[in-house]
Amino acid sequence: MFRREISLESGIAWVDTEEKEVQGRRSSDAKEEPRVVLSRNSRSCGAPGATAGDAGQRKGDFSMFRTKSALGSREKSLLSSTKENRPDLDHADGVPGSAGTDDRVNKSVPAGRYFAALRGPELDQIRDCEDILLPRGDVWPFLLRFPIGCFGMCLGLGSQAILWRALASSPAMAFLHVTPDVNLVVWFLALAVFVFVSITYILKCVFYFEAICREYYHPVRVNFFFAPWIACMFLAIGAPARLAPKQPHPAIWCTLIAPVFVLELKIYGQWLSGGQRRLCKVANPSCHLSVVGNFVGAILAAKVGWEEAGKLLWAVGLAHYLCLFVTLYQRLPTTQALPKELHPVYSMFIATPAAASIAWSAIYGKFDDVARTFYFIALFLFCSLIVRINFFRGFKFSMAWWSYTFPMTTASVAAIKYAEEVPCFFTKGLAVSLSGISSTMVFLLLWSTLLHALVWRSLFPNDVAIAIANDGNGGTRLRETEKAAAAAKRRYDLKRWA
Amino acid sequence: MFRREISLESGIAWVDTEEKEVQGRRSSDAKEEPRVVLSRNSRSCGAPGATAGDAGQRKGDFSMFRTKSALGSREKSLLSSTKENRPDLDHADGVPGSAGTDDRVNKSVPAGRYFAALRGPELDQIRDCEDILLPRGDVWPFLLRFPIGCFGMCLGLGSQAILWRALASSPAMAFLHVTPDVNLVVWFLALAVFVFVSITYILKCVFYFEAICREYYHPVRVNFFFAPWIACMFLAIGAPARLAPKQPHPAIWCTLIAPVFVLELKIYGQWLSGGQRRLCKVANPSCHLSVVGNFVGAILAAKVGWEEAGKLLWAVGLAHYLCLFVTLYQRLPTTQALPKELHPVYSMFIATPAAASIAWSAIYGKFDDVARTFYFIALFLFCSLIVRINFFRGFKFSMAWWSYTFPMTTASVAAIKYAEEVPCFFTKGLAVSLSGISSTMVFLLLWSTLLHALVWRSLFPNDVAIAIANDGNGGTRLRETEKAAAAAKRRYDLKRWA
Amino acid sequence: MFRREISLESGIAWVDTEEKEVQGRRSSDAKEEPRVVLSRNSRSCGAPGATAGDAGQRKGDFSMFRTKSALGSREKSLLSSTKENRPDLDHADGVPGSAGTDDRVNKSVPAGRYFAALRGPELDQIRDCEDILLPRGDVWPFLLRFPIGCFGMCLGLGSQAILWRALASSPAMAFLHVTPDVNLVVWFLALAVFVFVSITYILKCVFYFEAICREYYHPVRVNFFFAPWIACMFLAIGAPARLAPKQPHPAIWCTLIAPVFVLELKIYGQWLSGGQRRLCKVANPSCHLSVVGNFVGAILAAKVGWEEAGKLLWAVGLAHYLCLFVTLYQRLPTTQALPKELHPVYSMFIATPAAASIAWSAIYGKFDDVARTFYFIALFLFCSLIVRINFFRGFKFSMAWWSYTFPMTTASVAAIKYAEEVPCFFTKGLAVSLSGISSTMVFLLLWSTLLHALVWRSLFPNDVAIAIANDGNGGTRLRETEKAAAAAKRRYDLKRWA
Repeated sequence: MFRREISLESGIAWVDTEEKEVQGRRSSDAKEEPRVVLSRNSRSCGAPGATAGDAGQRKGDFSMFRTKSALGSREKSLLSSTKENRPDLDHADGVPGSAGTDDRVNKSVPAGRYFAALRGPELDQIRDCEDILLPRGDVWPFLLRFPIGCFGMCLGLGSQAILWRALASSPAMAFLHVTPDVNLVVWFLALAVFVFVSITYILKCVFYFEAICREYYHPVRVNFFFAPWIACMFLAIGAPARLAPKQPHPAIWCTLIAPVFVLELKIYGQWLSGGQRRLCKVANPSCHLSVVGNFVGAILAAKVGWEEAGKLLWAVGLAHYLCLFVTLYQRLPTTQALPKELHPVYSMFIATPAAASIAWSAIYGKFDDVARTFYFIALFLFCSLIVRINFFRGFKFSMAWWSYTFPMTTASVAAIKYAEEVPCFFTKGLAVSLSGISSTMVFLLLWSTLLHALVWRSLFPNDVAIAIANDGNGGTRLRETEKAAAAAKRRYDLKRWA
Repeated sequence: MFRREISLESGIAWVDTEEKEVQGRRSSDAKEEPRVVLSRNSRSCGAPGATAGDAGQRKGDFSMFRTKSALGSREKSLLSSTKENRPDLDHADGVPGSAGTDDRVNKSVPAGRYFAALRGPELDQIRDCEDILLPRGDVWPFLLRFPIGCFGMCLGLGSQAILWRALASSPAMAFLHVTPDVNLVVWFLALAVFVFVSITYILKCVFYFEAICREYYHPVRVNFFFAPWIACMFLAIGAPARLAPKQPHPAIWCTLIAPVFVLELKIYGQWLSGGQRRLCKVANPSCHLSVVGNFVGAILAAKVGWEEAGKLLWAVGLAHYLCLFVTLYQRLPTTQALPKELHPVYSMFIATPAAASIAWSAIYGKFDDVARTFYFIALFLFCSLIVRINFFRGFKFSMAWWSYTFPMTTASVAAIKYAEEVPCFFTKGLAVSLSGISSTMVFLLLWSTLLHALVWRSLFPNDVAIAIANDGNGGTRLRETEKAAAAAKRRYDLKRWA
Repeated sequence: MFRREISLESGIAWVDTEEKEVQGRRSSDAKEEPRVVLSRNSRSCGAPGATAGDAGQRKGDFSMFRTKSALGSREKSLLSSTKENRPDLDHADGVPGSAGTDDRVNKSVPAGRYFAALRGPELDQIRDCEDILLPRGDVWPFLLRFPIGCFGMCLGLGSQAILWRALASSPAMAFLHVTPDVNLVVWFLALAVFVFVSITYILKCVFYFEAICREYYHPVRVNFFFAPWIACMFLAIGAPARLAPKQPHPAIWCTLIAPVFVLELKIYGQWLSGGQRRLCKVANPSCHLSVVGNFVGAILAAKVGWEEAGKLLWAVGLAHYLCLFVTLYQRLPTTQALPKELHPVYSMFIATPAAASIAWSAIYGKFDDVARTFYFIALFLFCSLIVRINFFRGFKFSMAWWSYTFPMTTASVAAIKYAEEVPCFFTKGLAVSLSGISSTMVFLLLWSTLLHALVWRSLFPNDVAIAIANDGNGGTRLRETEKAAAAAKRRYDLKRWA
């Protein structure tokens, strides 16, 4: 209860208290155990008492996700105490318990494991029969519940800053008389959120590096690792004219594109030549995030005056967008993370062509046939989703939703560029409508986030996706039956298509 | 015998007589039953007598495909009489017979069911072991035998009208001295056929709406629902200069493109986010029909002076053509309807790039690199098919063949446009050759259609594709074995690729 | 021992001696048999003596790959003598032995058979449990060990000639002061190698036509049949200015493009409508060879002044490159030949976009957006491979490696063209670096080839890929178990993805 209430305060102040809390919790394991055993028994399917006790034992072990180096000094004492606590378990299972726990947290969880243990379009819900490494009933430390998806908020606000800048400065939108101050306010808000989210995530990096590794190996989440850099580029592109009257320095572009490029080499390389993370398997709408970075980078490159670099990024983006677009449209039976029904994640489909359109017009200086083609593709995909708007309802809010607002905003900016090129009533109306819709969406989401954060205190639920057990090390018979069940389910899925 | 002879008369006159016939047939069920039992036994694989009797019972139930509202008044009496006729069947099978019949006709047959029950590149032949809802031996009512594919005839003739208009008006073809009258004659013929087919199909809509629903849920046939609108656009594009000297009004474009756009939102949405009708499964050459509409619409948009709308359609077409082209070229093992051997349906491959080429040159006003690229792709695909011409032989004629003529005609028109841009002996020769081939094909097909219609009286065979039993409701054991056989077959197909 | 030493001498001189040798070998079958039995037993998995004896019997039967017409006269006597030698075998196996041998060499080995029997990214290694038609222990006749992949050497050297011509003539590279003599020397070297390889392969055609058929049916090797014509086009494009001061005659282009076009109609037709050789199954990086021919042909077309023909080829290349690129990036589970790890064959990925870029700039006369887009895609793919350079180590050298050098050279030429368009320090540096790398690679490979040829005498190992047994005819139980093992392996592969 107490932790619930403090969970939304600043991460910095909190980490210090959490330190003590975890240690205090560990000392009070003895008396809390019975409750945990019960809560777990009620959720896991037929888990024998031994496993439940094991989980109870693990209850306070958030340290398994701690940065390894930080553990250095006290690891030994921890291990020995752990060992003393469960000689009977080891005896019963015939598995070396402590070694097992350590192995189960080793960082490279195979991609297939994520697909087997998790479900949902964002692979963020645990399958019913799966066991997790951390206690389900408890509230975990704040940093462990702070996912990479929070950078989506920066994407949403940063793109809004660009939109309002375009609304204020575009000749086609002059009739709206938008003041540049809106851009200024939104930009500072976006900057503040970005600084806060970045610092929190850096702290997570420092204290729970293993948890970040697990997010990185997560087939859907890995795409969100592009978000911080894209958000930063959004801030650079949407910077108010009053603050940055001159062309930005190319060094900014170099700094921001470097991590994107490195990540792309890694991710696209996995698609092409990796083992399990091949495109036909991991393709899901979130992958658009790993492509859109190229186009946003191209826009920034045009802004700093490096057109050729922008053309390079645009070409890279095009090649991989093609592959991704076709793969997603085919909906191969091998792509496991594709949602059965429509979901906000589908809005990502709009982001990439819209960004490609803006980038092309920025690099080549005119909104010509290529830019139009991409803009119209984005527009059609928008229509295609809007007519299915009913399907979008009934989903639980999550921070990842913020990432689903920037596509709309990007489409609005593209619409403004198009209205500049073809100024008429219809194009201007479209630009205004799209801008209105996207701003409304961002406002609603901001409101919803504040409600979740301050009123319902449910903004950061336990991030079960990072706590799944590594397959190869769970030696209990229970896991075997779980695996069999998951395999049967997948076989069924396959058979339905065969 | 008698019905066979009248089956090709005008649909309008016929529907009235058919009404009575069906009623008359129902009253004479008792004495006709033995013959039907025999005929079915000889075809179904080991069907027990009970099921055969059941089929005999269903023999005259063409009303199951009647528009539901029309049935309103007499439904109750029908049901009661049906019930009285087969108390023993219900007893023997342990299935509530009458309810079963009703359920089996409910309209949303799943896509997988069509793949399981039908075969052939057009999914128009019934698998040997499948049971159908209507009697195989009899000739069904004319409207039930009139498939949506008949609009292919309008496509073939409408595109010919455009070709002859281009031949008469293109400066590159001036040396042929083609008179515009040919265009006029062909156009009026196309118009007449279109009016006839449309009225007949509207009558089918009115009287047998359930049958149309089943055509709509058919994974191959659904693409032919684009044909009426495309045919109409062909008529608008190919209208003789004497009749329509001025630029057509944009309202024509709006009227014709609206249903195409709505259908596209539906079909592409199914590809992208639907359940079973995902692209990797339903992809087949007929899907080109659902893409080519965009390009034809773009041509018409250019003709009415709305270039930007044309660019929108062109972009939408391009995006989905890409997906379709790659998917078809890959020949994924999941695409079940792809013919093993070459088939006239492959000519569809030529249609889309040729139309894209014409559309680009019409919108942007010049036959530039993009238009040429698409034209040359069409040309290569044409060569690729022409060298396999032998494979095209030995297929049974069907009305769907008409749809396979318009690609050639579209390619001819593109060749004429190209000859205008690059006037030399070779390009002109190519344009004339292609025009000659396509006109010959249309003429031969017209001849063949007339022969089938007037001499052999076999133009409209029973359309078994709409009469397959809905899987989930056929509760007899017979169906189980059929399903097992089909599943085994599919498993074998899969294994061959594994 | 003796044959090892002569194996690298001129093929022409050698063929004559080999003739006698084979005949001599045949007469000495009786006394050599025991050794062979032992050697085979040690390698095959549990082969009963009968099969081993059968193989021993087949030991000298290189004639099974001889051109059928050449065998005409003595075939009968051969067959009768074979029959006499193994009446007991026929009795033991219950298979008509001689007929079996003949059938097993019949030319159309199904594609699936190659996948089942061979492994490796080039499908050039035999699976452990597979039996082959020729003796493993012996050194086969030189011509049988001379694969089509040897034309890769011509590709590598021919493209170097082009590179040095570009380095000498490009204004952007003038600061290097490269003399045209390098181009002259490299071109003559390339020409000499081409003539030698061609004559040898023509001799193989004449004497061992069946072996060539088997290479043609090999799903990876078939792509190398494009190599001779591409190499020839390279020679035409890179011809020294001193030797060919004028524009080459279009007849050269016609002569060289004709076989490429015919092969493409065949190969692409198989992708699209073939039975087992569909793209989703046979796709592997070597397929780039069957696409790059279009772009090289387009460059040559521009050189002879036939821009429109070049545009045609470019369009054809683009369409199929798209399909191939997406398919390879998806890494469908059905594509069996894709290497698990990176391999030199991946360098092919660079070839096609680089060639497309050069071709576009050659046809349309400017290095515009399209050319840049393709050039940048090639550059990114190059980066993507270079960061994984460690994976390239540890592979056994083979002649096919030569084919993996020309992509780098093509990229260098594209970089030079780009440096002409955007002359600055960075672009020139990139062009020089790429040229340096590619020349070094070719030089190292030349050195390695000479070492293998002259010192280690291991340049041409037995080409087991052509000697796999045709599945349907191996009637022994041994084969059954082998097939079961291969099937189990494939099932396992599939399950891993399911």
